[in-house]
Amino acid sequence: MKNVTITFQPLDVRVSVPQGTTVLDAAMEAGVHINAACGGQGICGRCRVRLVSGTVDGAPGGLLAAQDIEDGFRLACGTRVQSDTAIALIHTSRLQVPPQELHAGRAEAPGPAPADLTIPPVRKVCVTIDSPSLTDTASDAARLMRALKQQHGFDALTLDPAVLHELPQAARAGRWRVTVLLEPHPCHSPAGNGAGPAPLLRIIRVEPGDTTPRAFAIAIDVGTTSLWGRLLDLRTGETKALASHYNPQIKYGDDVITRMVRAQKPGGREILRQSVLEGLNSIIDRLVNDAGIEPGCISHVIAAGNTVMSHLLLGLETRHIRQAPYTPVVNVFPPVSAQQAGLRLPAGIPLQLFPAVAAYVGGDIVAGVLASGLSTRPELCLFIDIGTNGEIVLGNRDWLMTASCSAGPAFEGGGLRCGMRAAPGAIERLHIDPETLEPMIITVGHAAARGICGSGAISILACFLTAGIIDQNGRFNTQCPTKRIRTGPDGREFVLSSREENGGEDVVITEPDISNLLRAKAAMFAGCQCLLEKASLQFNDLQQVIIAGAFGDFLNVREAVTIGLLPDIAPERFSFIGNASLLGAQLGCLSGAVLEAAERISRNMTNIELSDDSSFMDRYVAAMFLPHTDARLFPNAALPKARAGAAQ
Amino acid sequence: MKNVTITFQPLDVRVSVPQGTTVLDAAMEAGVHINAACGGQGICGRCRVRLVSGTVDGAPGGLLAAQDIEDGFRLACGTRVQSDTAIALIHTSRLQVPPQELHAGRAEAPGPAPADLTIPPVRKVCVTIDSPSLTDTASDAARLMRALKQQHGFDALTLDPAVLHELPQAARAGRWRVTVLLEPHPCHSPAGNGAGPAPLLRIIRVEPGDTTPRAFAIAIDVGTTSLWGRLLDLRTGETKALASHYNPQIKYGDDVITRMVRAQKPGGREILRQSVLEGLNSIIDRLVNDAGIEPGCISHVIAAGNTVMSHLLLGLETRHIRQAPYTPVVNVFPPVSAQQAGLRLPAGIPLQLFPAVAAYVGGDIVAGVLASGLSTRPELCLFIDIGTNGEIVLGNRDWLMTASCSAGPAFEGGGLRCGMRAAPGAIERLHIDPETLEPMIITVGHAAARGICGSGAISILACFLTAGIIDQNGRFNTQCPTKRIRTGPDGREFVLSSREENGGEDVVITEPDISNLLRAKAAMFAGCQCLLEKASLQFNDLQQVIIAGAFGDFLNVREAVTIGLLPDIAPERFSFIGNASLLGAQLGCLSGAVLEAAERISRNMTNIELSDDSSFMDRYVAAMFLPHTDARLFPNAALPKARAGAAQ
Repeated sequence: MKNVTITFQPLDVRVSVPQGTTVLDAAMEAGVHINAACGGQGICGRCRVRLVSGTVDGAPGGLLAAQDIEDGFRLACGTRVQSDTAIALIHTSRLQVPPQELHAGRAEAPGPAPADLTIPPVRKVCVTIDSPSLTDTASDAARLMRALKQQHGFDALTLDPAVLHELPQAARAGRWRVTVLLEPHPCHSPAGNGAGPAPLLRIIRVEPGDTTPRAFAIAIDVGTTSLWGRLLDLRTGETKALASHYNPQIKYGDDVITRMVRAQKPGGREILRQSVLEGLNSIIDRLVNDAGIEPGCISHVIAAGNTVMSHLLLGLETRHIRQAPYTPVVNVFPPVSAQQAGLRLPAGIPLQLFPAVAAYVGGDIVAGVLASGLSTRPELCLFIDIGTNGEIVLGNRDWLMTASCSAGPAFEGGGLRCGMRAAPGAIERLHIDPETLEPMIITVGHAAARGICGSGAISILACFLTAGIIDQNGRFNTQCPTKRIRTGPDGREFVLSSREENGGEDVVITEPDISNLLRAKAAMFAGCQCLLEKASLQFNDLQQVIIAGAFGDFLNVREAVTIGLLPDIAPERFSFIGNASLLGAQLGCLSGAVLEAAERISRNMTNIELSDDSSFMDRYVAAMFLPHTDARLFPNAALPKARAGAAQ
Repeated sequence: MKNVTITFQPLDVRVSVPQGTTVLDAAMEAGVHINAACGGQGICGRCRVRLVSGTVDGAPGGLLAAQDIEDGFRLACGTRVQSDTAIALIHTSRLQVPPQELHAGRAEAPGPAPADLTIPPVRKVCVTIDSPSLTDTASDAARLMRALKQQHGFDALTLDPAVLHELPQAARAGRWRVTVLLEPHPCHSPAGNGAGPAPLLRIIRVEPGDTTPRAFAIAIDVGTTSLWGRLLDLRTGETKALASHYNPQIKYGDDVITRMVRAQKPGGREILRQSVLEGLNSIIDRLVNDAGIEPGCISHVIAAGNTVMSHLLLGLETRHIRQAPYTPVVNVFPPVSAQQAGLRLPAGIPLQLFPAVAAYVGGDIVAGVLASGLSTRPELCLFIDIGTNGEIVLGNRDWLMTASCSAGPAFEGGGLRCGMRAAPGAIERLHIDPETLEPMIITVGHAAARGICGSGAISILACFLTAGIIDQNGRFNTQCPTKRIRTGPDGREFVLSSREENGGEDVVITEPDISNLLRAKAAMFAGCQCLLEKASLQFNDLQQVIIAGAFGDFLNVREAVTIGLLPDIAPERFSFIGNASLLGAQLGCLSGAVLEAAERISRNMTNIELSDDSSFMDRYVAAMFLPHTDARLFPNAALPKARAGAAQ
């Protein structure tokens, strides 16, 4: 078979593939990321590219308008190249790497008391070993253990066999002074009471000399959409570097369901594992370079992710998570070797994942609960993580209940025609002139508008509703005196920023986009209602509502209440925590007690399965209205401006 | 560079190597084993081969007589091939695989009481896991641990991460009935008192269904010269198969010193590790095939070897064992994955090595002490393992002292011109006609004489001494009325079996051979003396002398006393145990308590370092006489026949 060359513009990346290869496969081959939300099934229409030159065939797909096809647009998943071809990536198909430091200051949120932060989960201690002599012929290992007992009081010790390969040389190179990493080897009692024998300490690494002044750890948030990493100095708790990367698994699907579908295909699990590792290794490289440290100075890596992300990172079966009764392989993940797990780090450094609660309530939520201090507060709190899954936790220091409500990725920019993450150019806030209906947009980094991120979508919905551009069903009022409402390939759409205005492509929000947002907000709100109902509580009983999520900082509470995403309670009861999962992982890096608390939380949180709860469906349908079909729930909501001729 | 082809006869093995390659290197390349006792340094003269055809160059070496060189003999290590060449392997250079079952019946020696033999070190238990449901959404791992607690009372459990990859499938394939392997995760307290927290149990393997009726283990003796393996049925304790193999490391040197020298060369440690693994894997294949079982039925592998063999098997540094103060990396070896260690077994099966005492008192001796029951007996015992190292243990159930005395490999056939292991054709017993001085020889398997094994060497020495063929210094009496004494390349030698008699090569014993044997027996005897002296005891205080070693079964005590190898005490106090190391490993396979006892023994045994003991040197020199310079030590020894003209 003949090979052809594909050039991806504007990146100028070339790849040679057999004739007949799809553009999506070629892009994967080339390492060029195209957002294939449906995993390449040809049903989401998000992998649009533009044919610049060359011959292709394959069905253009019903998702493209005739004009689009004539303009050269194609779906990458269904288009097969027949000759040397040039393909232009367009903004809805290309992913953005998030900016380096996105409101990192927010991370100083309420957390465990500093008293807990004294002993990291992996300890780094320096000992002086007796040198061997004819009167002390004990083995190197025995003399090391003796020194650890005499100088640090550690009695219950085991030794990783790999350490034996380093010990003789390290001890002699350090002139009988070495630094060891000690990992607790806790017993996982199925009783879940945390009792049982005292944890053994396992010697997992040995280095010559005293390296304790250089002790670092990496906290990682393994998000479905974004990966975040933070390099911490264990002596001071300071952040030395922060880095992020989209989750490269996105090319195999936007949400955990499509990823699990992909994982079940032959070799799929390994492909997804390598994919997320690629992103994590890129983050680790960046952290280490930015901080100017040796990777060998890292003591441990603590990661928090949802249950599916955690399973895929470890290469575990997700088949049974996807299907009822939604059974993970494991919730309390044992520590693994970071290197053996595939991270580019020296041998002996452990990777510990935050424990999960259930199939759809993962370690990211447990980390978030810890970071928010929810589990130690006396007052009644609701914790909402507006991510792809939409997890909520209700409770206080005495009890915790949790549920996930499959909100979908709309509030992360997923499922929107021009959706994107909170990267430069993303519309994050909108204002509509009540007379002209002309939009004023604010973008991340104040760059030319290139798409819409989650906070922008909430702002758009609230402004459209208030201005009467959409009705309470989320449909456009075609009688509005604005030329910005037009009919596009997906139906009616509003041009937020035209190509003339931004010098790129039209940024629009479509009626299907609004439906997606409506569904997401309805799921979140119905989930909160159900969880409260299970506890015989009402929204007004909540003393704190803690919101986490990538857009936490931009979220306008008033607007979120306006559209019925958040409950209509006193604004001062809301607080924002930003990326709570990363913050929890960060606390876990600094304190072994945090990880122990995480395990207790994961065992003791009551998980409410909403997918099989008929009252959830009722409440979900009722919430598919702006702000809600039951107006009594939103007594303070501004009534939408009535306009003649609202869409029928 | 041109390649040439070398053919090894009579094996008819061909190998193509670059012109100029040594015959020894070519043999290694071809997998043909040539005994290079000095590691290829050209100083031992044991790698003799015969050139059949072809052109070679290189120094023939001072170790070959002119006649030998004319007859085509060469040293493989110094001979470089220049054309296609045929090389004949000769009996002193070719190694023998030991016979399948060499007095296995002997293995039923005194050991721990059967009461100890109830719980193997790795337990195999079957559990029924609750199937998941919407009311029981616990993870697979949590439900497994719950079942292990409810059905077996195991509370303190950890989980090998690798098990998580098997668990979902195994649980469902077994319809929620699985079998797990549980390995204790004991804490190695440096205090050595064995106290501390109760051992955790680690789940290291999971299989669908109930596989407990098929539970096997492999016991291995990693000898410097020979490897032995025994496949055991854990339900009955029965031996299902027995296999042995020479230790392929022999081609890198006869004893642990030359192997450690080789290990220090670049890449040497890995070469030696792969070499012993090759032999062990061959044994495992044979055991599994002979028993007709699946390798997956094996629960664990327990191996006993001396400290150097154990280090080399695990790929650990031996540099510091070789040099004073003789420091091993580790004595109490942590369990490792057999597969990761390089054994061809499924993942999850642990390999546990018997703990060592010191650099030259290894796990083989600890295993031997356990197998002999020495550590549980009330009476004073001396345990002698006449292997390459020559280890001795003195004590009873209350105290144990040990020493090694570097006897050298003479009693295993090493260092003798026609030395060989106790394989068919090895002279194992001799009788000399007192009148004609003609020898009557008994060989292993009654085959044509091909060499001399350890028990044969002792018999030869005793008979020669009694018949006056040698004097008390071990020198030939040239005035003896026999033509069998002649001058060979190494000086005077006695033809035990001529090529006319055996249809092969002359089997001789040389004066240097006898010197080697004298040194070996002197070291053993002086070691025993020193050890007794340290305990303020004498030979007559010994109530039992337990002899172990490959030739244990053939050893004639009277002859060993005659030459001064064993002390001159009542014959009924001697007992034989055969391969005590393998027997100890076998007991360790059957009972975790044995391994715990082994660890206690290894920590509590007092090691006496003889190499720096001046009294040892004095006693060694005094023992370099047959039977001893101090005749009072051997009151019952038959006086050697006085002959005129003993060598001056």
